[in-house]
Amino acid sequence: MHTLYYSPAACSLAPHIVLEEIGKPYGLEWVQAGVKTVTPEWKAMNPKGRVPALSGVPGRIGGGTDLLTEANAIMIYLGRTNPEAGLIPADPAREARMIEWMNWLTSSFHAAAYASVRRPARFVDDPALFPALQAKGMKTVLEQCAYIDGLLGDGRDWAVDGGYTLADPYLFTFWVFLYRLDGFDLGPFPAWTAHARKVLARPATRRALEQEKIEVSV
Amino acid sequence: MHTLYYSPAACSLAPHIVLEEIGKPYGLEWVQAGVKTVTPEWKAMNPKGRVPALSGVPGRIGGGTDLLTEANAIMIYLGRTNPEAGLIPADPAREARMIEWMNWLTSSFHAAAYASVRRPARFVDDPALFPALQAKGMKTVLEQCAYIDGLLGDGRDWAVDGGYTLADPYLFTFWVFLYRLDGFDLGPFPAWTAHARKVLARPATRRALEQEKIEVSV
Repeated sequence: MHTLYYSPAACSLAPHIVLEEIGKPYGLEWVQAGVKTVTPEWKAMNPKGRVPALSGVPGRIGGGTDLLTEANAIMIYLGRTNPEAGLIPADPAREARMIEWMNWLTSSFHAAAYASVRRPARFVDDPALFPALQAKGMKTVLEQCAYIDGLLGDGRDWAVDGGYTLADPYLFTFWVFLYRLDGFDLGPFPAWTAHARKVLARPATRRALEQEKIEVSV
Repeated sequence: MHTLYYSPAACSLAPHIVLEEIGKPYGLEWVQAGVKTVTPEWKAMNPKGRVPALSGVPGRIGGGTDLLTEANAIMIYLGRTNPEAGLIPADPAREARMIEWMNWLTSSFHAAAYASVRRPARFVDDPALFPALQAKGMKTVLEQCAYIDGLLGDGRDWAVDGGYTLADPYLFTFWVFLYRLDGFDLGPFPAWTAHARKVLARPATRRALEQEKIEVSV
């Protein structure tokens, strides 16, 4: 049985939803994984000091642990080992479109732009420089939201034409980030919100949100 | 037939090596894709304005083009549609370990840390702030190099135990980034350099480097 190591409303929400979509028993363990709050115990288990991580996956990141890190690796592993859940397209082109979304979200959106806004200490040491970094980060986030909204508003049913895939809970997770961000206005991005509403309508999503005690009403 | 849109010694080198590993005919087109040098023509074809991109993949990122973006999506698509090349492990756990590498490299290493050093204008507008961003970025890059070196030096044969995968040319590409970075000393990372030497020994790698006119002697 896998255990998902998560922090509430972090990007671990995406694999959490995936575990609920699959519907098999799993463990859930809350860990401190903020920039300054990572515990020595967690750092010893996962040198990256972040979430999500999934136990029970053969192989190693370092000292021979069976812990798998990186949201996309975890989601793809879960999708691959539970093909009956239908979360990864069998067609290589559709799979590639799913990964195109996921890779862009993890790098350009999350690690670069969004982290500049929320985790400026990753980029500069002097707190006096945080506002400049956060301002530019927010400008980039807004451009990226417009890009996402344009794609989701072009008539497709889900992120990847033809059905729900791993890209959908991942997109939803970042929508939740923005939904919870003080003062952020999702109004200009109605297609993304419409997509979030569809993901939210799925019982698996609602169960994951409830377990993480995240309230979303939209 | 696919065409790979690339810039010399950019992260497009990784899918370029993959195309050479596969060994089927493909086109290669050089595009201007720097922060300030992206051409209007390329931006019209690929709204992200970056490389790599691969033509001839069904689906869409925007206006109905058949262009696939994101290095990892391209590599996985090529690996998946050319299973005889054996670049993606059939075992889901080994595949997940490959994606764990690739996802971390694209997000934590490339988009966040390395881009802070080389593309500070993505993070702050005021050039007076570039040095602070670059100094912290370099500190993070060095920590990440030590992490990579530790993993590659633990006795494994390739990035993922059990054989060459897509993670290897991707790791090699970032090693080339650092090899070409003025004043960067790879000396403290001998395991990563030993890995690079093994990737470099493959004829596919040497062909891709030659086509991009990149000289590497190590």
